[in-house]
Amino acid sequence: MPAKPTSNAPDPIRRNEASRKAILTAAFDLVGEVGFGKLSIEAIAARAGVGKQTIYRWWPSKGAVLFDALLMLSEDQATGRPELPDTGSLEADLKTVLRATVRELNDPRYDEPMRALNTEIVHNQELAAAYTERLHEPMQRLKRDRLRKAQQAGQLDPNTDLDLAIEMIWGPLLNRWLQRTGPLTPEYTDSIVETALRGLMPR
Amino acid sequence: MPAKPTSNAPDPIRRNEASRKAILTAAFDLVGEVGFGKLSIEAIAARAGVGKQTIYRWWPSKGAVLFDALLMLSEDQATGRPELPDTGSLEADLKTVLRATVRELNDPRYDEPMRALNTEIVHNQELAAAYTERLHEPMQRLKRDRLRKAQQAGQLDPNTDLDLAIEMIWGPLLNRWLQRTGPLTPEYTDSIVETALRGLMPR
Repeated sequence: MPAKPTSNAPDPIRRNEASRKAILTAAFDLVGEVGFGKLSIEAIAARAGVGKQTIYRWWPSKGAVLFDALLMLSEDQATGRPELPDTGSLEADLKTVLRATVRELNDPRYDEPMRALNTEIVHNQELAAAYTERLHEPMQRLKRDRLRKAQQAGQLDPNTDLDLAIEMIWGPLLNRWLQRTGPLTPEYTDSIVETALRGLMPR
Repeated sequence: MPAKPTSNAPDPIRRNEASRKAILTAAFDLVGEVGFGKLSIEAIAARAGVGKQTIYRWWPSKGAVLFDALLMLSEDQATGRPELPDTGSLEADLKTVLRATVRELNDPRYDEPMRALNTEIVHNQELAAAYTERLHEPMQRLKRDRLRKAQQAGQLDPNTDLDLAIEMIWGPLLNRWLQRTGPLTPEYTDSIVETALRGLMPR
């Protein structure tokens, strides 16, 4: 029977976890510096201080690494189960959320990786499925839950389709960001929220 | 003094124009068949029946060829100066326009080239500038003109920023298309128009 590892023995699970975090952090930092097109597994390995084969053993492509890096980030930020704010005022809460999104999108450390992911999934079906399941759908559920509460509180038209409502609120912002067709400012997102909610309120 | 070409002599301008059209048509057809990633100058040349060097003499990259192909298409469709419909009812006109857009986006012959262009410009600054100047801005002007008329006719709030209004109307649709987050149907675009205009009407 093999001896149990003592507290002084190297712990392979903990060591793997440390390598994994180093790789994901390196991928996230590098894509912000050189862009997705020039990102390479070699460079990620060198920055993380691991061998290339370690990365290839865990991920099939640089897109997959980057995707897990973004996921790690959103998990780190969330304390427990993430939720959208609920102060009772849908308008105030949406303004808070969209202002926070704009702060992220204006930060080059986030802008480039998220831009890379958003364009890569257009051509990569496998990554698109993972994106939908692990990032997009969980966020959609949070948004739907918050809007449903507002609908029950009489702040949204009872006949409004919640997926359409989500697109009326977040679509203009994401489109302006991806197409770079204008500045992303708090005043801009406040106007989106006000205009969208006027269109979505009970008749 | 060189003799003027007679009607029977080969006309180099007309011959160049025929080659140009053959190349752009080949690029447009091929990208719909194989996608932008696998599109190659070699394949475009073979399909168009010209030498590779002919293409490289006129365009710096496959992205530039594809871009001109889309521009040729939109010029062919427009009889003279293009305009958005103006029947007097902004709601009816926008429904007509968005339904036509959805018919195009649901056609694989258009979907793939436009998707390729929309993602390529995210990483390619030169192509992005050409896109803005030659495709995006002319369309923005048409949209702004139509919305300004509606504003003058009292169908839109006089304080509404027209660029914001454009994004409230077209943003959700473009975002759903690029992210493939739902079906593009006439019922869907009608709902967008109704919801957006309710938010944008005079208070």
